[in-house]
This record gives sequence, C-alpha cells and structure tokens, in this order.
Amino acid sequence: MRIVGDLTMHDDSSALTTAAAFSDTDREAVYRAIFTRRDVRDQFLPTPVEDDVLQRLLTAAHHAPSVGFMQPWNFITIRKPDTRQQIWQAFSRANDEARDMFSEDKKQLYGSLKLEGIRKAPLNLCITCDRTRGGKVVLGRTHDPSMDLYSTVCAVQNLWLAARTEGIGVGWVSIFHQDDVREILGIPEHVAIVAYLCIGYVDQLYDQPELQKKGWRKRLELSDLIFEEGWRQ
Amino acid sequence: MRIVGDLTMHDDSSALTTAAAFSDTDREAVYRAIFTRRDVRDQFLPTPVEDDVLQRLLTAAHHAPSVGFMQPWNFITIRKPDTRQQIWQAFSRANDEARDMFSEDKKQLYGSLKLEGIRKAPLNLCITCDRTRGGKVVLGRTHDPSMDLYSTVCAVQNLWLAARTEGIGVGWVSIFHQDDVREILGIPEHVAIVAYLCIGYVDQLYDQPELQKKGWRKRLELSDLIFEEGWRQ
Repeated sequence: MRIVGDLTMHDDSSALTTAAAFSDTDREAVYRAIFTRRDVRDQFLPTPVEDDVLQRLLTAAHHAPSVGFMQPWNFITIRKPDTRQQIWQAFSRANDEARDMFSEDKKQLYGSLKLEGIRKAPLNLCITCDRTRGGKVVLGRTHDPSMDLYSTVCAVQNLWLAARTEGIGVGWVSIFHQDDVREILGIPEHVAIVAYLCIGYVDQLYDQPELQKKGWRKRLELSDLIFEEGWRQ
Repeated sequence: MRIVGDLTMHDDSSALTTAAAFSDTDREAVYRAIFTRRDVRDQFLPTPVEDDVLQRLLTAAHHAPSVGFMQPWNFITIRKPDTRQQIWQAFSRANDEARDMFSEDKKQLYGSLKLEGIRKAPLNLCITCDRTRGGKVVLGRTHDPSMDLYSTVCAVQNLWLAARTEGIGVGWVSIFHQDDVREILGIPEHVAIVAYLCIGYVDQLYDQPELQKKGWRKRLELSDLIFEEGWRQ
C-alpha cells in the first residue's frame, strides 16, 4: 500500500505538515465506509484472507489513537478449525444462558438470530489489551483506568472500516465467558480480551443494521441524542 | 451529504445488497484518514465549526456499531467560554496530580507537554454512554458488561476519522476526575462519561503522533504484536 510506505518513510521527521480537508470524492469514500459498515454474522465467503490484506488491516488497527501512545493491543489470528470449534462451543453455552435472560416475548426472536460467524468466517481475530504495557503510570490513564481498553476499541474500529474498503466483512462476537476464551487461547491474566472478531470476504451486506432489519430495535433519532452546553439542555 | 440521503431512503428496505470492495482511490482515502488522523492539542484555529459540518460528524458517530443496536450515546456540545474555563480548571487540577505520579526523569518532559485544547478549540464535545438504555438485558452485553462503553468508543473513532476528512482536528482529553465533569455538565449517575473531545479546524498536523515526536514513547513493531492461533505463538 503506497500510503503505508510514505508514512513509514516519514517516521524520523518531526515537522508539522499541511493538513487540508479531503477532496469531496475522498471525503465521501470515508463516509461511505462508515455508513455501509455492518456487523456481519452470516455473509462470509470461504475465500481466505491473503496475508498482505490482513497486514493492511492490522496496520490500520495499529495506527489507532492510544492513551500515552501505549499501543496496548495484540492481535491473535485464529484459523485452525479445531480452535474455532472450541470457541464456538464457548459461544454456544453462553448464548443459551443469554437467551434465558430475555422476557418471553423477546426469547423467540433472540433464538432465531444468528449472532456469530466463528466457524463460517475463514479468519477469527482476538484483539487484546495488555494492561501493564508502558508501566504502572501511563500518560492520560492516571484518572481514567479504562483509557487503554478504549484505545484498543479504536483499533477495532479502524480495522473494521479498513476491512469494508477491502470487501471484507467483520462481526464482533461478545457472547462468551471471557475465561473460556482466555483458556482456549492461553491469554494471561494481565491481558484483557477486548474483541473477538469473525473476518472474511463478503459480496453482500445488509443495507441497514441487521438487528434493525429483523425487528429487534429501531434507529434512534440523532436529534434526540444531542444536548447543548449540558445534559438535557 | 449525498451518501446520508441515499441511506435514509433505504431505511425501510430490508434486502441484502451487493457489497464490493472500494476502488483503489476510495480505499486509499480511507487508509489516508486512518494514517493521518492525529490527537490534536494545539493546532486548533478559531474558525467556528458550522452546524451542517457538525451534523455530518455526529451522523458518522451515530452510525457506529452498537451492542444489541443499543445506540447508548449522547453528544453534549460545549461552546460557552465560561463552561470551557470550568472544564479546563478541572483538567488543570488533575494534571498537576498526574505529573506528580511520574518518576523524576519523566516529570519534566510531562510538564512540557500540552495535553489539551479545551479553551483554544472553538467546540468541545462530551460523548456519554447511557448504561440503562434498552433495559437491563441487552443483546450481546449479557456476558461482557463493558460492551456498551466499547460501542460508544466506536462512535468516537468514527467521528474522529470523519473529522479528518473535513479538515477538522480532534483531541481526546482524559485527565479529569470524572465527577468534576459530571457536576459541571449535570450528567446523571447512570450515564458514563466516555470521551471529552476538543474540536476545531486545523491547517497543520504532526506527521507522526505527537508523543512519538516529542520523545515520550516509540511506535512498537507491528510484527511483535501479532500471534498465530494463541498467545505468544
């Protein structure tokens, strides 16, 4: 990718550079990635994700903002069917528990939803946050201990948007007991599991969020969510 | 924005649609937003951010993924100089405490860093997460109670990348006692403060993260952060 190369070349420079707005077409490309990104559960094609494409996605993740430039993330790729089967079993147990938490009227709809693509997507990716990276005192994390977790989420979102441009779908699976995933992947205690992603090429996507389409919840009015100068003002 | 309009028109449709990879130029635009986005503290111009541009940024945030389509976020805009002065005082007190936490060799460098643009940026934005939205049981949050906070962080990152394309810089300030910000803005207890952002037009940006440029920390090698099939494999 040309852009990655250019930035790498600049790594030793320290100057401020001109930063204009993007052209209309470039700006629209970014908005298009944002508006057409979906949480994919079932549209994955079996086509493998090539190493150079994966490298671009992880480079995008690695260029997320991080508190104190801590870069607390690690990326664990999972392709082996046996490992994915174990992860799926952990999901499946947790999902049974989850369904039983809902009221009767929601339980049936919940049960009908496909909520993961662990075995269908050719690539799974676990993104973690090493809480100890950079020492005990981290610039910007002194008053909000969650900031390193939030940095890691920014990396997830960068990867998700980059994937959209590559024709690759991403689905975030959160219905696990974290200790199950921790044990299967051998993740140590000081490392938090932030996201478990299913990744693969797609040739179709929903034109609106799947949970909206399937009647789970509606999109809220943006204007109802904006306040001026203080809460509810 | 044409793209927003198209999507709104499709809101009642429920079909899967074709989802190709982006053209090379559109793809590079998205990577360029990701790689040239900076955490801005001092480059803000006084030019006001127009309402239609702010609306585009908030629409981008509102199209972030959210657990169970919960959309837990609110957006509080802060422009009044008096409110920004109060917020800056809360930052300033916390920053004095933060500086004293670092070892002697880091303390001087820490003190020399500008870590916020609260009064210089013409617009501040507090992004919150209503933990109660959508009821007690939220699809996908049943086993990881932080998922709604993570959704809100995805909204922050969407806004940050959209802002880059508009020629607008964003800086995330995290050095506060949350209760100070809560009191100043009147935010209720069930709502978490996720991000406090300084926002304004910029015509210059650092070509690498400011903390890297100023010798605080180096960028890690991406290859050291990737494992295959399990931790440290």
